[in-house]
Amino acid sequence: MKLGDLATPALVVDGPTLDANLATMAAACPGTRCRPHVKAHKTTALARRQAEVGHPGFTAATAREVLGLAAAGLGTDLLLANETVDAARLAAIARCGARVTVAVDSDATVDAAAAAGIREVLVDVDVGLPRCGCPPDDAGRVAARARAAGLEVRGVMGYEGQVTIVTDRDERAAVTEQAMALLARAHDAVGGDVVSAGATVTYDLNTYATEIQAGSYALMDSAFAPMAPAFRPALWVEATIISVSPGWAVADCGLKALGMDHGPPTVDGARVLVVSDEHLTIRPDAPVRVGERIRVWPAHVDPTVAYHERMEVVVGEEVVETWPVDLRGW
Amino acid sequence: MKLGDLATPALVVDGPTLDANLATMAAACPGTRCRPHVKAHKTTALARRQAEVGHPGFTAATAREVLGLAAAGLGTDLLLANETVDAARLAAIARCGARVTVAVDSDATVDAAAAAGIREVLVDVDVGLPRCGCPPDDAGRVAARARAAGLEVRGVMGYEGQVTIVTDRDERAAVTEQAMALLARAHDAVGGDVVSAGATVTYDLNTYATEIQAGSYALMDSAFAPMAPAFRPALWVEATIISVSPGWAVADCGLKALGMDHGPPTVDGARVLVVSDEHLTIRPDAPVRVGERIRVWPAHVDPTVAYHERMEVVVGEEVVETWPVDLRGW
Repeated sequence: MKLGDLATPALVVDGPTLDANLATMAAACPGTRCRPHVKAHKTTALARRQAEVGHPGFTAATAREVLGLAAAGLGTDLLLANETVDAARLAAIARCGARVTVAVDSDATVDAAAAAGIREVLVDVDVGLPRCGCPPDDAGRVAARARAAGLEVRGVMGYEGQVTIVTDRDERAAVTEQAMALLARAHDAVGGDVVSAGATVTYDLNTYATEIQAGSYALMDSAFAPMAPAFRPALWVEATIISVSPGWAVADCGLKALGMDHGPPTVDGARVLVVSDEHLTIRPDAPVRVGERIRVWPAHVDPTVAYHERMEVVVGEEVVETWPVDLRGW
Repeated sequence: MKLGDLATPALVVDGPTLDANLATMAAACPGTRCRPHVKAHKTTALARRQAEVGHPGFTAATAREVLGLAAAGLGTDLLLANETVDAARLAAIARCGARVTVAVDSDATVDAAAAAGIREVLVDVDVGLPRCGCPPDDAGRVAARARAAGLEVRGVMGYEGQVTIVTDRDERAAVTEQAMALLARAHDAVGGDVVSAGATVTYDLNTYATEIQAGSYALMDSAFAPMAPAFRPALWVEATIISVSPGWAVADCGLKALGMDHGPPTVDGARVLVVSDEHLTIRPDAPVRVGERIRVWPAHVDPTVAYHERMEVVVGEEVVETWPVDLRGW
């Protein structure tokens, strides 16, 4: 099948760009040094590519991502880098057959993990992003409680997500270092071999973590690309022009095909005017015709991918593979 | 099952509020006077409720919505209120067994509909929203081309979507009237019995249309609720607190559970600080505990619903039905 034959809107991955991104990360952070985060693509076929270039372990944000990776035979070393007290989901994770480590940051999450039969945990530490994670000074206590409950504590985790808005590289390095100093303090109290942290925008700055939880690098998006220029956007939504008016044109790619939290998408050769449920109104630089195709580059890949059932991998104009986005939902 | 037993994040519909919203619209715009737009809920079980209160016809934005309604036995009179030149999808619509009318606004869309075996069309007219629709003065020509191609032209359609940002009711009425004056001019040139227009925010203002394409009224959202006070929000995302820190708490409902184009959601008794992929960081007015439930009210229902596989209908604390969101995708 040809790219032009795909029904639209279609989520399209440029195969060679994806391969280049995966190779770049595998060279910079080989093997276990990168624990790819699947929340960015929610696709076991893409995770398999990441395993093939040398990364045995994966990071997940949801129980379904963990269970889907396990079912796909990618369960060598999975990290649920998120808190949950859902007893049924924790029990399913405990018996899924994969090695799964779960993040904990409180008595409640420790107790829920232990009660469900989870065996290994990381203590999640607040390193400056107002989200999950216990205060660094509480990490030792959480670890002790986990060990008392029979859990193996592999180490610590801390996501320095506050850097994702720091565009200056030196400043980002400094903020990362401050965050990792907090994580180091927690690690001293907790022990264990694993220090899991990082992101695509700090993969080459975070020298303290033993493993980098990078996700966006594989497909990239227009919001993060300037901060990680070694990786190029590999994912767009292919859309069809369905209406042309004097001054604007409309394509069949709207709010239900695009994550919008980082703002509207970009379109080569056109200015984006309005995004509505199933429409993208653009002002093209040159005249377009009904039936013509355009490439719509999402500002944020993760919530974009979550809207789509599948992604089409292309090499040039050829569709070479279709990958189900099989880790959607919870 | 109880509301508290649902795994989270869960899309929840308050049954009595939904019923009240449906009854209010059925009283104001009975029978064919309202052609409910299913893009707002993407759920055939909810569409069936709309049929049960008296609306025989439906509006759809995608081929999949049309085909899903037809397969569910709700195909008495369907309108694809959107342009497409997708030959395969138009052919599937033509042979789906339902009565389907398709919007056209150009030679290309007329020709595609005729070639695929579509029988009935509406001429879509630009009434002031920069989106689809031919200029009013071109509508007669488009209709003539459709008739020459063997298509039955049932009338005109024009969406006065520019009013969705006009909060003052009198001003909204005036803008609606201007828009409908354009549609009337087109209708004079096109002929036919159908004048399809309107929205939840103009259902009681648009007196020119023969049928109102209201969608949001069934579930409502915090963005439109102030403009249509007869309808109350009936849909929230049930979430669980997974982490509590000094100054904030985190729930398991993020960007992949919420349409964000109208801004962040609202939470009763808390201020929303950050929304990330699978997390909602809030500042609660009173202390919360890990494991506690909160209700997250989306700012925009349509792209929120499109993220979820199902919606749970509750009456009080009882889950009385589970409805698959079965019209997702394209």
